[in-house]
Amino acid sequence: ENLKYRHQLEQANSELKTNLAVLEQDHQAGLQVQMKMLPVSPMQKSAYIFHHQIVPSVYLSGDFVEYVTVGPDHVVFFMADVSGHGASSAFVTVLMKNLTARMRSDYNRQKDDDILHPAEFLVHANDELLGTGIGKHATIFYAVLDTQNNRLTYSVAGALPVPILIANGEARYLEGQGAPVGLFEETNYQEIVVDLPDKFRIMMFSDGILEVLEQESLAKKEAFLLSEAPKMKADIESVFNGFNVDEDKQYPDDIALLIVDKV
Amino acid sequence: ENLKYRHQLEQANSELKTNLAVLEQDHQAGLQVQMKMLPVSPMQKSAYIFHHQIVPSVYLSGDFVEYVTVGPDHVVFFMADVSGHGASSAFVTVLMKNLTARMRSDYNRQKDDDILHPAEFLVHANDELLGTGIGKHATIFYAVLDTQNNRLTYSVAGALPVPILIANGEARYLEGQGAPVGLFEETNYQEIVVDLPDKFRIMMFSDGILEVLEQESLAKKEAFLLSEAPKMKADIESVFNGFNVDEDKQYPDDIALLIVDKV
Repeated sequence: ENLKYRHQLEQANSELKTNLAVLEQDHQAGLQVQMKMLPVSPMQKSAYIFHHQIVPSVYLSGDFVEYVTVGPDHVVFFMADVSGHGASSAFVTVLMKNLTARMRSDYNRQKDDDILHPAEFLVHANDELLGTGIGKHATIFYAVLDTQNNRLTYSVAGALPVPILIANGEARYLEGQGAPVGLFEETNYQEIVVDLPDKFRIMMFSDGILEVLEQESLAKKEAFLLSEAPKMKADIESVFNGFNVDEDKQYPDDIALLIVDKV
Repeated sequence: ENLKYRHQLEQANSELKTNLAVLEQDHQAGLQVQMKMLPVSPMQKSAYIFHHQIVPSVYLSGDFVEYVTVGPDHVVFFMADVSGHGASSAFVTVLMKNLTARMRSDYNRQKDDDILHPAEFLVHANDELLGTGIGKHATIFYAVLDTQNNRLTYSVAGALPVPILIANGEARYLEGQGAPVGLFEETNYQEIVVDLPDKFRIMMFSDGILEVLEQESLAKKEAFLLSEAPKMKADIESVFNGFNVDEDKQYPDDIALLIVDKV
């Protein structure tokens, strides 16, 4: 009797392992494709350094970051956080990558310069998400850095927390708000222009970070991020360590970090 | 000793089940998003009926079909078969859906009518796949049906088998060839125009069907498809039954079927 049960257990075990291996392999292949879509980190453009890290929750990520030079004097960078996570959310990150590539190509062929206008990009992103009909929305912080004039133009589409700007040992959240993309037919986004300090850092998290912090309210979590941010060292690892993010752990939500440094 | 082993087995079993459940849930959510992207089957447009079915290999599909009316007199339909399968290939199906939606929108806003030109669509698809840099290619059969003149204009991008045209009890493969999209920077595709018979059926399979057929060579499999096709009844189920495709089974590759009937 006991032997029979043991045999059944062994059998079940073996089947589970096979099924799991098939799905895991599939996920790994998907993850590799996602990794190919991310920019090479770090990227330097004159005095500016861009770096990022994504800790995906269930192998495939709904968080997406991009930074790319556009023409001689601009770098476009953004972070998108797709509702939910896993395969279905990962689909949308492909759309975001594709949209950026397409708009950059339009810019290079002098067709239009929408990629340099955050509000325009977000309207395009909104149209695409609604047009594809996959029922997903995304929060996005989209920014255009003018490296010639050390100036930032950005729009906020529901991003939470908004990025932190650090200079002279002080930190503040960037202003601005707007609806996520993929929810409403009619949207328009406010563009905000900031003349940047001579040396600065911008630190940007996806909302997965909020679930890792132990403070009991959103306000307190945001205050904690703000108070700790200026103390952190320049590298991704120090920042994740400082906020107790273990890159090898599986969190309930994806956690993305994007840092822009001017040194 | 035996008891300890049994306990270990039970423990392992439970953990495997949990991990599997997480991945399966993720896949299911992804599959739901994919299903949302497919056209409603059947779709009727004047005397033409479009229907399809996809049997995905590992939950997420690398096969994709679309049919959509464009303006008053045209239906665009295509089948895409992305290299590989699973999550990474499913990413590309989202791009294909998005491209179609965008080009249809351009048509409706009278921006351009590329969607009615198979060769133009394929060039766009090629650019997108290369631009996104995800290292995937796809075979596509893309066709524009002029319902006013009962005329088909199509291009073949590596599709195998090519669609079968059945009329008056006789079947033939449509002519044409071309490279898959996503492989080469420079591509151009030949457009072929066919005046259609008054009553006809077009039957189109993704290459997953070839692995199900028992004939020992590609030529024999294709000959078998051609000889059996005219005998099949109008519905998807009969066709799958006729070729021994069990919709509940997991095959090594996705199997897609798209049928266009003029009655």
